[in-house]
Amino acid sequence: MNLPDPSEQVQTLYRGNWLTLRRRGNWEFVERNQPGGAVIIIALTSARRLLLVEQYRVPMGCRTIEMPAGLIGDLEGHDGENALTAARRELEEETGYACERVEFVHAGPSSAGMSTEMMVFVRAFGLHRTGPGGGDASEQITVHEIPLDQAGAWLREKAREGLSIDPKLFAGLWFLEHVPEPGGQSGS
Amino acid sequence: MNLPDPSEQVQTLYRGNWLTLRRRGNWEFVERNQPGGAVIIIALTSARRLLLVEQYRVPMGCRTIEMPAGLIGDLEGHDGENALTAARRELEEETGYACERVEFVHAGPSSAGMSTEMMVFVRAFGLHRTGPGGGDASEQITVHEIPLDQAGAWLREKAREGLSIDPKLFAGLWFLEHVPEPGGQSGS
Repeated sequence: MNLPDPSEQVQTLYRGNWLTLRRRGNWEFVERNQPGGAVIIIALTSARRLLLVEQYRVPMGCRTIEMPAGLIGDLEGHDGENALTAARRELEEETGYACERVEFVHAGPSSAGMSTEMMVFVRAFGLHRTGPGGGDASEQITVHEIPLDQAGAWLREKAREGLSIDPKLFAGLWFLEHVPEPGGQSGS
Repeated sequence: MNLPDPSEQVQTLYRGNWLTLRRRGNWEFVERNQPGGAVIIIALTSARRLLLVEQYRVPMGCRTIEMPAGLIGDLEGHDGENALTAARRELEEETGYACERVEFVHAGPSSAGMSTEMMVFVRAFGLHRTGPGGGDASEQITVHEIPLDQAGAWLREKAREGLSIDPKLFAGLWFLEHVPEPGGQSGS
């Protein structure tokens, strides 16, 4: 596909309830109607266990393993909430862990060639259990707590069992190993 | 959004030239018309330099930094080509490096909540320069060769300059550090 002429405007091909298909020149892409993007939460417990979530994903038609995540400002009354606030809420809803603070790590596109969606990665600190997790009323989420040093082997086993493993999860693991913490100490 | 009833069939909301918007129950998602998915190539030269590509991405409206990548079977006559063949072609087109062999590393969804797109990660071995790179006639790609141990700092600097850094690139870096090579030796 050729790059569009700079004078080409964005056109709307179809507006759904949640997603809109757009075109600029010959280039087609999808946009969420809710423009806040999504946040992925890198969460390690004090016992150095990584929190992962398993859920059925309709587009994939199968269960996936991902880091806890959610849309920024996807609920009524949450318009304008930022990624850090959304991260706290989603972490507690999905995993049953509240956290003392959240730090920004990275923001980038989920699929730069076909979507405007931006993913914000944050790291949660000071985790403490407040409930069972499992998501809101519309979600059916299984929480996994995996010792960090066994995460690679555990994920390979889950892939062999037929679950789909979100590649962004491995980006989260790289950030855990390489992005220095504000306090200077690496780990939880 | 509630999960659809298992009896709900997939409906087509709009079919574009490249992307199709679909719905199952209340859940909307996008699909590439070309169903082969995409391949991301983790490529380290013999001098332990990581190959990265910079290009303007229409959906994002800015330049991005990514690992070399391309669609599997996106050209006429390439239907049915697999990820490893596509990877060799895309690596050479985009970076000007051919490789001796390519190994499968991981496959997973780029955005499991809104798209059916699958990304295949492969590792290229035995790189040797054959040309300038830069992509095919429709692409304008700048190639970067970054010493692997400086990749994190270089990417942070590029993000500060306003480029959008693909998070999947960090997954590729994690794979470089954690997935054992067939030959047993880590590195290039």
